Amino acid sequence: MRSASGGPGSESAASGCSLLVERAASALAHEAKNPLHNMALHLQLVSEKLPGDAARGVDRHLQAMRDGIAQVDALLKAFADLAAPANLVPDLGQALTRALLLFSFEARRKSVELTRKGPAEVRVAAPGEAVLEIVCNAVLAGIALAREGRLTLAIEPDGQRVRLEVIADGGVPRREETLPHLEAVRRLSSVAAAEPSIDVEGAGPARLSLSFAHTR
Amino acid sequence: MRSASGGPGSESAASGCSLLVERAASALAHEAKNPLHNMALHLQLVSEKLPGDAARGVDRHLQAMRDGIAQVDALLKAFADLAAPANLVPDLGQALTRALLLFSFEARRKSVELTRKGPAEVRVAAPGEAVLEIVCNAVLAGIALAREGRLTLAIEPDGQRVRLEVIADGGVPRREETLPHLEAVRRLSSVAAAEPSIDVEGAGPARLSLSFAHTR
Repeated sequence: MRSASGGPGSESAASGCSLLVERAASALAHEAKNPLHNMALHLQLVSEKLPGDAARGVDRHLQAMRDGIAQVDALLKAFADLAAPANLVPDLGQALTRALLLFSFEARRKSVELTRKGPAEVRVAAPGEAVLEIVCNAVLAGIALAREGRLTLAIEPDGQRVRLEVIADGGVPRREETLPHLEAVRRLSSVAAAEPSIDVEGAGPARLSLSFAHTR
Repeated sequence: MRSASGGPGSESAASGCSLLVERAASALAHEAKNPLHNMALHLQLVSEKLPGDAARGVDRHLQAMRDGIAQVDALLKAFADLAAPANLVPDLGQALTRALLLFSFEARRKSVELTRKGPAEVRVAAPGEAVLEIVCNAVLAGIALAREGRLTLAIEPDGQRVRLEVIADGGVPRREETLPHLEAVRRLSSVAAAEPSIDVEGAGPARLSLSFAHTR
């Protein structure tokens, strides 16, 4: 399914460029880990070495730097999980967090107002990699449908199952842009043991609903 | 050639996963720009607000943080150039710098000792995007050929032309891993107006040489 995880045989099937991008993507988090770790270490040394008064005066800035390091780290980890997944926890909430880290730029670029609802963590009975891929595709389809409008992403527990609701409203939908993503959602649904329900053609809000089995 | 730069039509031709990775890749540098910029700003405020004595005591650490921010920024820019290129300057030296930023993890992972020689900047007469792609493929082929050995990457001006020499020596070559990269080098050579010379089968050092026209 993914050329980076296969051997040289599967790689040669991908286009030369995707091969490069996927190779570089899987190295990116590793390459950035050292400088980020170093920065956190030196930041720690700064707050330890400064006399009390001086430290209090710059505490706000040191905290902002800590937050910045954590943000870049989270972003690169989310990207690594997508580009070179390894033993991903199958969690619908975490997958949605990662998808939003990676694609909120896409939403801003298309003037989409995002609202997230529901729990931050919900384990589901499916391979973690497929859960992340299907959620990313659902979010990208939602962004295309909500162009210049509102997109609600809600995780709703429902008995033995849990649903991801993607509701696009008030925008100028670009249905042709959703096609590869909806195709991927359908293709991945059997892998992720998800039941999709897609209603994007009517006059009302476009709605994409994915129901997963809870982990027992 | 690259799905991320085409419309929805070209995207649907790519596999679902490459599509996601390429989408996320092109957003990554944008998403990381804000936190990195903020960190640099707060770092500046720290050094301005600290009294002279206190500032001198932590100066080394502040400098290390500045360096860290620059490193992560350079890495993300190199990746963006590969994943979502926009008006790349056709420069053989800069392309080699970016390829080394992105793939030195790959070299470490395969215990390859890298040596770079020649100028850091050399403009060539070719599209910048093709120059970066061909150099990345040449470097990855070289790393596979130099496994557990040495890899020399040398830029050598030669009259009206300039050559990138990739010489792998003393290792345990993995020729099958080079195939997609050598195929890409051959395919891209006409786009990049490069003349490749590939000699990887003999008993001596494996050598890949790419000759480009200098910008007049």
